[in-house]
Amino acid sequence: MKFFLSLLIALATMNAVHAQDSDEFFVRLVKIEIEPDALAQYTELLNQQMKTAVKLEEGVLEYRVVNEKENPHRFTLIEIYRNYDSYLSHIKTPHFLKYKNSSQDMVKSLELIDANLIGRTKKD
Amino acid sequence: MKFFLSLLIALATMNAVHAQDSDEFFVRLVKIEIEPDALAQYTELLNQQMKTAVKLEEGVLEYRVVNEKENPHRFTLIEIYRNYDSYLSHIKTPHFLKYKNSSQDMVKSLELIDANLIGRTKKD
Repeated sequence: MKFFLSLLIALATMNAVHAQDSDEFFVRLVKIEIEPDALAQYTELLNQQMKTAVKLEEGVLEYRVVNEKENPHRFTLIEIYRNYDSYLSHIKTPHFLKYKNSSQDMVKSLELIDANLIGRTKKD
Repeated sequence: MKFFLSLLIALATMNAVHAQDSDEFFVRLVKIEIEPDALAQYTELLNQQMKTAVKLEEGVLEYRVVNEKENPHRFTLIEIYRNYDSYLSHIKTPHFLKYKNSSQDMVKSLELIDANLIGRTKKD
């Protein structure tokens, strides 16, 4: 009986740690292909949006964005929000709507993929 | 003359900031598909490798890793190294070679894409 109690506590603790680590976050993997001509303009719009969102919104935690050296019109984003509500609130903000409206003619394709955060490893 | 001097200084400063921001880094976008059965084991190996590399290697700056909720065997990584030499040195380390050898039978496909860092935006 004591063994099962310990096991139960151990399992409960593992879940708690796991939840704190990633399950609370809402994580998106985003793939965007833009019109090659719009590269500089699109990059500027995206950076403005990201900086404003992280600064003003409590629930927007971070963005990592790359484009491919050989195909610079192909972007990949990893976006981390505090939770799903933070994301829903984010897509209604003036800065996000400005980005969305201003860039809509530049975006050829957009793929939004719900994701799990496996690692977020960084120098202290 | 004074105007052109100011312009020159402004341009030089912009370049310096830009270089510091991203050009010095070596950035990889990595797509990995693993054998679905190996999910837990692979995740553990990858996390061990990443934590060790960031801790021990001066030139390994950060990893962001996600897998897809609907296809958890599909991983995407954004890796930031201080420069290309840091990357070359990284792939010779014991912890990387251990990861590579231990996971080789789990990995179905691997795509390494050289990338530019567009945004690295995070709460202070």
